Amino acid sequence: MITKEDIRAAAQRIAPYIRTTPVMRVEPGLSNVPGDTFLKLESLQVTGSFKPRGAFNRLLGEPLPRAGVVAASGGNHGIAVAYAAQKLGARAEIYVPSLATALKRKMLTNLGAQVVVAGNNYVEALAASEARAAETGALKVHAFDDPATVAGQGTIAIELDAQVPEVDTILISVGGGGFIGGIAAWFAGRVKLVAVEPKQCPTLNRALQAHMPVDVDTGGIAADSLGCRRVGDVPFSVLLPNVQDSVLVSDEQIREAQLALWQKFRIVAEPGGATAFAALTSGAYVRSPGEKIAVVVCGGNADLASFA
Amino acid sequence: MITKEDIRAAAQRIAPYIRTTPVMRVEPGLSNVPGDTFLKLESLQVTGSFKPRGAFNRLLGEPLPRAGVVAASGGNHGIAVAYAAQKLGARAEIYVPSLATALKRKMLTNLGAQVVVAGNNYVEALAASEARAAETGALKVHAFDDPATVAGQGTIAIELDAQVPEVDTILISVGGGGFIGGIAAWFAGRVKLVAVEPKQCPTLNRALQAHMPVDVDTGGIAADSLGCRRVGDVPFSVLLPNVQDSVLVSDEQIREAQLALWQKFRIVAEPGGATAFAALTSGAYVRSPGEKIAVVVCGGNADLASFA
Repeated sequence: MITKEDIRAAAQRIAPYIRTTPVMRVEPGLSNVPGDTFLKLESLQVTGSFKPRGAFNRLLGEPLPRAGVVAASGGNHGIAVAYAAQKLGARAEIYVPSLATALKRKMLTNLGAQVVVAGNNYVEALAASEARAAETGALKVHAFDDPATVAGQGTIAIELDAQVPEVDTILISVGGGGFIGGIAAWFAGRVKLVAVEPKQCPTLNRALQAHMPVDVDTGGIAADSLGCRRVGDVPFSVLLPNVQDSVLVSDEQIREAQLALWQKFRIVAEPGGATAFAALTSGAYVRSPGEKIAVVVCGGNADLASFA
Repeated sequence: MITKEDIRAAAQRIAPYIRTTPVMRVEPGLSNVPGDTFLKLESLQVTGSFKPRGAFNRLLGEPLPRAGVVAASGGNHGIAVAYAAQKLGARAEIYVPSLATALKRKMLTNLGAQVVVAGNNYVEALAASEARAAETGALKVHAFDDPATVAGQGTIAIELDAQVPEVDTILISVGGGGFIGGIAAWFAGRVKLVAVEPKQCPTLNRALQAHMPVDVDTGGIAADSLGCRRVGDVPFSVLLPNVQDSVLVSDEQIREAQLALWQKFRIVAEPGGATAFAALTSGAYVRSPGEKIAVVVCGGNADLASFA
């Protein structure tokens, strides 16, 4: 179980490497129901997503082997691990599935990581990365199913709690569950947590229905960051009691939210980073009158050409 | 003379229409000299620049004539006036010089403004807009040489003062002087203000040398937002005693700063919005050891295709 103390310790450990990302209160009118909305701009984090919080906490948690670190990732986790390894002077090998975007592959090589394309999806890349770690002795850095990673991701909740103490509800995009798991461990029921997933990646939605992690098929425009076949066991144990609502949005609604973030706020989000916002702008999540909602914009590694 | 009380009154007047924009402290390493750096993300303001602060303060200051409002602008001021007029239910005619970008013209028409292309530069567009106002009785909304506009722009300083009370120095891009003028009126010498201009638009730089507004030629990549032939008399009276340093940066340095804001911070700035940051990243402004610097990122209306 991940405790508030684990998250506090993580925050202290990673502080020299991480930005406190800003929150912006936005004007009313995002939904038909009145109430304040706050955007937590985690897309402005180092490497463009929340992932370095978990990666630094894992890498700083124990002495790094000479073989360095190895991770599997469709993108943002790999970029965060490569960045953390570079900052800490370690080697990094990142196993990416073939669906990883060209932008993210380029970011990996720019960070000095060795990039290995392995398999057509995350599960296949993960298996290859684990075989490699067994061979070299490198430290495996799991994207979400690891207590150190989850505690690191939870550090965003400490910031949000201080920045918007009055918040009632937080909307969070979900992939493998590590990010929302860390947030759930911090708030432990004090605020309403709403998991938002693409209709084509309903990983946590199905798990909550089944009361256990189950395999799902994934696809669509946010699959490179949110496409995860099965929610992690580590985060799921904290999510089952602490996630009050699970909402699904279409690819079209995600795309509209991504454009609205740019056109109305000059915020660039990748599709996975705009997914939580889509729940609000599409009406998939229905606000109660006066409900104060924070939306985490969790990734900004978008291809700008896709906006033009 | 613009007083702190004028700026406080403006802040109260425009509050329902304006976002409090966030500040982000960024990690060290932006210059070779150690010291904290804070980015004031005014590019996230409604309409993508600081301009609505002044526009709303002007439009809310007196009853609006039936002919509505008229303004001349290369872009952001016009967009802000059109936006404010739309929100307040007034007609808006915006006179733009031919160098206005296609993006900004499109934003104007999307806001319901009537767009008139008049002349090759701001001075010519301004003359045409004033002739039009004399004809129709519309309220003229000057982009910078007006006490209400300057007081409105100064409201950003109230926010920054509260957000970063420890700041030593603020770097600000300058066009006609209204924005830095409002900020100077608020701080009145309490912090060091550094004016940053493109080498090809040295409007305030030359005026400070001459101790009076003088005509300059303007051009280059930031001219559509910063290209102003002569600094305004209203702001100049507060700038002469309160601007401690004036720095010029090349178009190449502006472009590099614009790319750095995107690549390192996922912040989109237009060239004029990245000009202040360019003073830091290029070394044109030399930080003293431990100096705490705030950089205002004042406009985000960039063409995303130009990043690709």
